[in-house]
Amino acid sequence: MNPDNTELLKQINTPADLRKLQVSELPQVCDEIRHFIINTLAHNPGHFGSSMGAVELTVALHYVFDTPYDRIVWDVGHQAYGHKILTERRDRFYTCRKLNGLSGFPNPAESEYDAFIAGHASNSISAALGMAIATQLKHEQKERKVIAVIGDASIAGGLAFEGLNNASISPNNLLIILNDNDMAIDHNVGGLNEYLVNITTSKSYNKLRYDAYRTLRKLNLIDDEHRGAILRFNNSLKALLTKQQNIFEGLNIRYFGPIDGHNVVNIVNKLNDIKDMTGPKILHLRTIKGKGYAPAEKEPTIWHAPGCFNPETGDRITVTEEQKPPKFQDVFGLTLVELAKKNDKITVITPAMPTGSSTCFMMEKFPERSFDVGISEEHAVTFAAGLAKEGLQPFCSIYSTFLQRGFDEVIHDVAIQNLPVTFCIDRAGLVGEDGVTHHGAFDMCYLRCIPNMTIAAPMDEHYLRHLMYTAQLSDRGPFAIRYPRGCGSHVDWECPMHEIPIGKGRKLYDGNEIAVLSIGTAGVAARQAVERARKTGVKAALYDMIFVKPIDEEILHEVAQKYKRIITVEDGCITGGFGSAVLEFMSDNGYTPHIKRIGIPDKFIAQGTVKELHQLCGIDEENIYSVIIGNW
Amino acid sequence: MNPDNTELLKQINTPADLRKLQVSELPQVCDEIRHFIINTLAHNPGHFGSSMGAVELTVALHYVFDTPYDRIVWDVGHQAYGHKILTERRDRFYTCRKLNGLSGFPNPAESEYDAFIAGHASNSISAALGMAIATQLKHEQKERKVIAVIGDASIAGGLAFEGLNNASISPNNLLIILNDNDMAIDHNVGGLNEYLVNITTSKSYNKLRYDAYRTLRKLNLIDDEHRGAILRFNNSLKALLTKQQNIFEGLNIRYFGPIDGHNVVNIVNKLNDIKDMTGPKILHLRTIKGKGYAPAEKEPTIWHAPGCFNPETGDRITVTEEQKPPKFQDVFGLTLVELAKKNDKITVITPAMPTGSSTCFMMEKFPERSFDVGISEEHAVTFAAGLAKEGLQPFCSIYSTFLQRGFDEVIHDVAIQNLPVTFCIDRAGLVGEDGVTHHGAFDMCYLRCIPNMTIAAPMDEHYLRHLMYTAQLSDRGPFAIRYPRGCGSHVDWECPMHEIPIGKGRKLYDGNEIAVLSIGTAGVAARQAVERARKTGVKAALYDMIFVKPIDEEILHEVAQKYKRIITVEDGCITGGFGSAVLEFMSDNGYTPHIKRIGIPDKFIAQGTVKELHQLCGIDEENIYSVIIGNW
Repeated sequence: MNPDNTELLKQINTPADLRKLQVSELPQVCDEIRHFIINTLAHNPGHFGSSMGAVELTVALHYVFDTPYDRIVWDVGHQAYGHKILTERRDRFYTCRKLNGLSGFPNPAESEYDAFIAGHASNSISAALGMAIATQLKHEQKERKVIAVIGDASIAGGLAFEGLNNASISPNNLLIILNDNDMAIDHNVGGLNEYLVNITTSKSYNKLRYDAYRTLRKLNLIDDEHRGAILRFNNSLKALLTKQQNIFEGLNIRYFGPIDGHNVVNIVNKLNDIKDMTGPKILHLRTIKGKGYAPAEKEPTIWHAPGCFNPETGDRITVTEEQKPPKFQDVFGLTLVELAKKNDKITVITPAMPTGSSTCFMMEKFPERSFDVGISEEHAVTFAAGLAKEGLQPFCSIYSTFLQRGFDEVIHDVAIQNLPVTFCIDRAGLVGEDGVTHHGAFDMCYLRCIPNMTIAAPMDEHYLRHLMYTAQLSDRGPFAIRYPRGCGSHVDWECPMHEIPIGKGRKLYDGNEIAVLSIGTAGVAARQAVERARKTGVKAALYDMIFVKPIDEEILHEVAQKYKRIITVEDGCITGGFGSAVLEFMSDNGYTPHIKRIGIPDKFIAQGTVKELHQLCGIDEENIYSVIIGNW
Repeated sequence: MNPDNTELLKQINTPADLRKLQVSELPQVCDEIRHFIINTLAHNPGHFGSSMGAVELTVALHYVFDTPYDRIVWDVGHQAYGHKILTERRDRFYTCRKLNGLSGFPNPAESEYDAFIAGHASNSISAALGMAIATQLKHEQKERKVIAVIGDASIAGGLAFEGLNNASISPNNLLIILNDNDMAIDHNVGGLNEYLVNITTSKSYNKLRYDAYRTLRKLNLIDDEHRGAILRFNNSLKALLTKQQNIFEGLNIRYFGPIDGHNVVNIVNKLNDIKDMTGPKILHLRTIKGKGYAPAEKEPTIWHAPGCFNPETGDRITVTEEQKPPKFQDVFGLTLVELAKKNDKITVITPAMPTGSSTCFMMEKFPERSFDVGISEEHAVTFAAGLAKEGLQPFCSIYSTFLQRGFDEVIHDVAIQNLPVTFCIDRAGLVGEDGVTHHGAFDMCYLRCIPNMTIAAPMDEHYLRHLMYTAQLSDRGPFAIRYPRGCGSHVDWECPMHEIPIGKGRKLYDGNEIAVLSIGTAGVAARQAVERARKTGVKAALYDMIFVKPIDEEILHEVAQKYKRIITVEDGCITGGFGSAVLEFMSDNGYTPHIKRIGIPDKFIAQGTVKELHQLCGIDEENIYSVIIGNW
């Protein structure tokens, strides 16, 4: 077909429009959506593969169910572009992930069709269960259907299991769609994944079932004197025939599938068959990540979020700057290999982010010391604690916003025992286009209250290396190193590494009027601002504190005694963060300077480029400069 | 037998002594341990039922395995008293849960036999997996066995599932013992629980297996041309015969059982059979909570932690003070029923603590609006968010230390959407005897950084009621109310309820020299201290701030302008907590008063009575008074 054909799609502004079409027209709608996604994302980067794989499912759901009255709860929401296009947002779809544009994930603040927030994996079943039970409790005239759509990687998360485990204990008619493409962002791992891979359909199942039932009855191997015996028999036989037991039926959730997730007519039929069944149920769809676009089907990890590309050739458009500094994640990943060569106690753990965190370098070089544990941040932390308890030196690489999932485990399993787990906290601070659910805003606050924790943040790649080197020396206890998404500032990042004394910062500029204390990469903007101020004659001092905890008391005594005005700068929430640590020190030591804290304000921040969001929050040269020269 | 008989037990100081005995002597060892526990706990209260149910398992584990070289990782650790008695701590067992005594839970800081920290449920599989893999990576001469012991309630937690899901992806020989007594602290719930209850042994299993195999082969219902086909066949047939599919085998973990958990000789034999098998495996034991003590077997929830009792009669010794104030949890539970009668949107969620949190009153009165979701704090929060998203008014009752498990869900699923979930945070502050893993020290810090959150803490039961009344009014967004373990201060707690303006505190005493700002029940000690100071002529002011966030800016402006010295008092960590909120306000508004913060210092606090621990941390009248009159 003509890739620019939107003959049917242009008639669809809401799902009600979609529902006016014939079933036979749906395949073309799917084609048109797919091309619309390709053409838009080629120039407006976003999450590609997941949405391509979910086109037929999306069309079928909106065709069969009465959205928005019925609720579709998308898990994570990488796959929800088709949904956005069908629900009043086709015209604005090109603004996706941009400042003041559409969110990259479902968000009820944006549309009534977005039934629940999405971004962190595995929440859909619990949320949808709550919504389904609420519809029962409210005794609404027309029953409101609730559908959770969850991927095979997300369903392995602990929260999803808790949801499944609770799905049958109160009356509800929840429908769970398992969108199974055998992928997370990288390839999926874990026992449950193998299990799902092994579920296969047996075409002759129905015929065999009857023969086998009669035979086993004769042998007295089954009894059917109790209600439910035949159902149990069928489930068990199905398990036998499919060579696996069915976990979902074990949890009292009726299971259907797997079916082809790219046959939209068949999905519509199946949904119509089961939508009015009472009780919780799961429909298992087999899909292909990147479906319908050959380059993406071939390399699904790269095409999870490919950036700009030529829609016709599939060539990805990369800016080739000869001397561009590397990403922080790569400096982390490559430095870890360097350290692991000399220290055989080093191991690495990633929860489903080998590519995104660059732990893939370790996996390639030291596969036996590298653990991709799937989407399970809680397990990642406690498992690391187990390794550390037996004398190893685990590096646990988790994005800041996802480490929130392992917060209790950091306290209970690591910090109480003072174990030497190094947390390499990637995507710390504002992350840009992924928006409200993904900003790493809170880690300095939520880690700072934990006894025994060391918390550090490098200003550049060199200090990331020095901190990693320092963390893997013995007797360090829990050690967190936070660094941002994106690139650093040094092309020549491969410096020799040396130990940094724990809790020691450094003075970059001496001054005599005002002191700026920065932590992490926020120090880059702080330095620009200080240099600009110094050129205009304001002799501002600058300290890169390096450590949030323990904080450098020597520097703080010096600053408190020398300067009446202090500015703290951090790419993190100002409530309870680095600046508050400075306030606490001053108060505890009887100092009463004037302090201005610059950081992420106490509100949720939407998407935009990192630069735009830093400006929005005032964590940029311009604002820091104006505070330095300001009158306060 | 004579209940004071310790003939064998007194010979056992370490498990090596136990291992010198004949297998036939082990039943008597079990009897002696049981009586030792009864006699000690009758006068020194502790967790009774779980340890009584695990006596045979404990003896068998230490008999078969080479502890402490081999590692036993207890989950939660309620059941580890027998373990403590067998591992060098019999003489000090009476000090359990007391200041400077033994911890009530396993703690490696106390003994090398305690392989890993315990207290929060569901961590054992992940921790033990890390330890088991570490032994492989270290290539130790003698293979170190690692055993996780987990209850049927704990294994339903998301973290445990993540551990199970990862147990087969790296080579390891982990042994998981499922200690299944069909109980959490209260009765267990959830699909997995029903599943475990339905697993039964089929005595004729072995004979039938062969017959059935041959028959099904003839029917071509199975093929065995591939390796593993027979194992799959066996597993599937076992599932068929036991009328359930086996979830564990679905996750590639070999499953054995269930066996009688009170036949110590049989457990020893079974452990010897399987201990050298390679690969991860699970042994399922059926036990009875409170086993061997009739009153406890009959009422296992009461006898989870019964307090003092008469060992011969089983009569529990309760101090009957006619006019004793009620527990905060009961005021919460009864008030919620009162509110729910008028507001039909109110629902309540508890993760496995209906008795401990007094949500049982709601469950009795409004069962359809009450949800015990089992040990799954993450699900509890997200499920509540789902209810709230559809217009209900959920009260999510979670202990402070366990809400750490749901931290991400509070941010992602509740706060971003600004949903009206009320978090009733019980056991906030120092909880006393449960010790280091159970103190609710961190909630004010980790909640304070979350945008949209309201955080309040009542000084007494009346204010708890007012705050609950206020929270269930519409358009409140996420609302946290923290209150402590134990009793309040009013016998006549059933006051009429009224709305409290959000973010408004109250002045209890005006003054002219120094102001004390307190939050929550820490205000009781603060008031005593202030009254004492005022009697000695120091005119200290006292404000009960009620809200941590939003904090009462009117009061703070008044205090900043009127007083040069300010004291903040909280039963929570001083790092990033309530006092830091005051510091932040002062700094943001250009005030520079001297401020002393009183609260839990930046270290982990062990067990003791609440009173002792408050004294230890200085959150008591004496210390507050001395700070008020101090020279600073």
